[in-house]
Amino acid sequence: MQTIRLGIAGLGRAFSLMLPTFLADARVQIVAACDPRETARAQFQADFGAPAFDDIDALARRPDIDTIYIASPHQFHAAHTRIAASHGKHVLVEKPMALSLVECDDMIDACREANVHLIVGHCHSFDTPYLRTRALIASGAFGDVKMIHALNYTDYLYRPRRPEELKTDKGGGAVFSQAAHQVDIVRMLAGSRATRIRAAVGNWDVKRPTEGAYTATLWFENGAFATLSYNGYAHFDSDEWTGWIGEMGQTRNANEYGGARRNLSGVASEEEEARLKAAGTYGGNAYTPASKAPVLRRHQHFGPLIVSCELGDLRPMPDGIVVYGDERRERIELEAPVVPRAEVIDELMGAVHGGIAPLHDGTWARGTLEICLAMLRSSAEQRDVLIGGARSITEEH
Amino acid sequence: MQTIRLGIAGLGRAFSLMLPTFLADARVQIVAACDPRETARAQFQADFGAPAFDDIDALARRPDIDTIYIASPHQFHAAHTRIAASHGKHVLVEKPMALSLVECDDMIDACREANVHLIVGHCHSFDTPYLRTRALIASGAFGDVKMIHALNYTDYLYRPRRPEELKTDKGGGAVFSQAAHQVDIVRMLAGSRATRIRAAVGNWDVKRPTEGAYTATLWFENGAFATLSYNGYAHFDSDEWTGWIGEMGQTRNANEYGGARRNLSGVASEEEEARLKAAGTYGGNAYTPASKAPVLRRHQHFGPLIVSCELGDLRPMPDGIVVYGDERRERIELEAPVVPRAEVIDELMGAVHGGIAPLHDGTWARGTLEICLAMLRSSAEQRDVLIGGARSITEEH
Repeated sequence: MQTIRLGIAGLGRAFSLMLPTFLADARVQIVAACDPRETARAQFQADFGAPAFDDIDALARRPDIDTIYIASPHQFHAAHTRIAASHGKHVLVEKPMALSLVECDDMIDACREANVHLIVGHCHSFDTPYLRTRALIASGAFGDVKMIHALNYTDYLYRPRRPEELKTDKGGGAVFSQAAHQVDIVRMLAGSRATRIRAAVGNWDVKRPTEGAYTATLWFENGAFATLSYNGYAHFDSDEWTGWIGEMGQTRNANEYGGARRNLSGVASEEEEARLKAAGTYGGNAYTPASKAPVLRRHQHFGPLIVSCELGDLRPMPDGIVVYGDERRERIELEAPVVPRAEVIDELMGAVHGGIAPLHDGTWARGTLEICLAMLRSSAEQRDVLIGGARSITEEH
Repeated sequence: MQTIRLGIAGLGRAFSLMLPTFLADARVQIVAACDPRETARAQFQADFGAPAFDDIDALARRPDIDTIYIASPHQFHAAHTRIAASHGKHVLVEKPMALSLVECDDMIDACREANVHLIVGHCHSFDTPYLRTRALIASGAFGDVKMIHALNYTDYLYRPRRPEELKTDKGGGAVFSQAAHQVDIVRMLAGSRATRIRAAVGNWDVKRPTEGAYTATLWFENGAFATLSYNGYAHFDSDEWTGWIGEMGQTRNANEYGGARRNLSGVASEEEEARLKAAGTYGGNAYTPASKAPVLRRHQHFGPLIVSCELGDLRPMPDGIVVYGDERRERIELEAPVVPRAEVIDELMGAVHGGIAPLHDGTWARGTLEICLAMLRSSAEQRDVLIGGARSITEEH
């Protein structure tokens, strides 16, 4: 069997969320890692009997690695991608791809010059319900996409954070972190180039002074428009409209409320909050090992979403797609996922071993970042921002 | 007991929807009516033992009427209001108030000069769940309003229509007819003057060539923003998110689907469709008498809506308001309505007999129409449209 021999750059929350995939997918071999936290390195060495370094250069020099998964904080994605590519490693980098379009271009160039693949993910646009909805649209059975409505109300802003995650100019906030998912999903479903956006962002908790909410309208070349709304202020929770299945496909308890704020309520400083975050991720003393995590029976998702086509609405859900046709409402059941986020490994394997061009490549992910940056700008300048596509137009960012 | 001695101008669908209120509310005496349809007049005379005329002048001349309910087609609202006021009658006019701001100004002037009240409704902003949510916000307990998300997916476009209801330039389509509700509710809850809007409208069924859908972002002077989305293409139905309680407070059958399109499927011409519509309204052979309608146990509503304040989200529902606070989620139960839409009569009585300035007066409703017109313009011109307020600014429409 062909495999991915994987090096892990960053053992934090993103890695914690991908680890169940790496453990369960036989196509992945975890070979080595790097992380600045000693506790995380010790845990990794104990769990995998494999080396863990304190910087990425040592990792990237390993000849027994073919792909590096870059799950370091956003601000390091560009530099770490450059290092990985310079050593001839394929790159799987977490979203958001980077914090500026110049960084994206550098990453794309570095990987192209090194002749390695660049895939950006996991992003929820990899989730099977969205990919299958895209296939239904592509079948032509429902006519053209006309309107998309996507919303998500979560506790995003009150999850434990490192200080820079609450500073927009450091890549913090809901636009970089959460719109990256929603924009990506909507672009994929619209099936057309985004041309303009108008957005408003919300930033109203002075103790956590970054975007906690946004709303945006995104227009596409084919005439479709999409509404994207997000609110991470931990009040209403839109998982109520997804059958109380959570973002990770887990069953949620509808009667639990206020947990995120309670968890933060005793935290007195930025440092203490950063420690709280670290404690809950890999190597931390409050970390739940992936192998003990409950088996997932539903797909992951990013909130309620309705695609309106000429001849029907499509509603991807964690366990099926509801098709609202002219005459009938039907439900396409989706098989339960065996390996969560296996779709990421599918795309990586396809690129590395199958010669199949990945959907979520650098150019694609750059397009999503461009839209996210345009959201911030539209809100600040109170006007539509055109989405360029070509470098020469968008370099003005 | 003080009463409203009411004349009815127009016995169509709007009247059919208000009739249960008029019948159940002892403060209302129905005195006379007018309608161009002979069957409707005959029905009215039989039901009420009261005169029904074929034109509004005869109705307005009646000395035993103090208020005229104008429920004629949109394009007649202005002329009929002028006639009512010229005879010294108070005016309750259906939404949308009119089709242009010039008409609104004429109506406001005519009523002011005649020293009669002008109230615009029923509009869903009269519904108790929204009024009570407004009172909760006004209490200050939740801080400032920051973000509102309102959506509604219905079968609006496939209800039987007269030809002009499918022509935007005649006042047809979802913006005039449906945004009039949603904009009004959102304005009331934001509690601040709207300053600008950016919208996209959808018009994608060539057989019914008017707006069936829209999305808009509306900004307010206090910094709040609202997302308003509507889709009347009869596919996904957002009553699923309101406990399958319908717009009129009725219990819906979640298993029924596609009824609106089926009902229209045999219709071969505009005339036949207009007859189908007439048949289902007052005096028609398919009309369900109001007295036989099921007793309502829930309030009316206009789709899922979430108001995000600094310290919590508020979600008005047909039978309660869910309060999502920082620490707790609570539900404020709302007493079941005894008389549907009694809130309209409350406001009318307050104005006519109590000296209480109505919320839904001409100036208020003109503001809602201004925003609806700005939605059409924003979509056509692909830019923000500023909301004026002062006549001199908005006359450019």
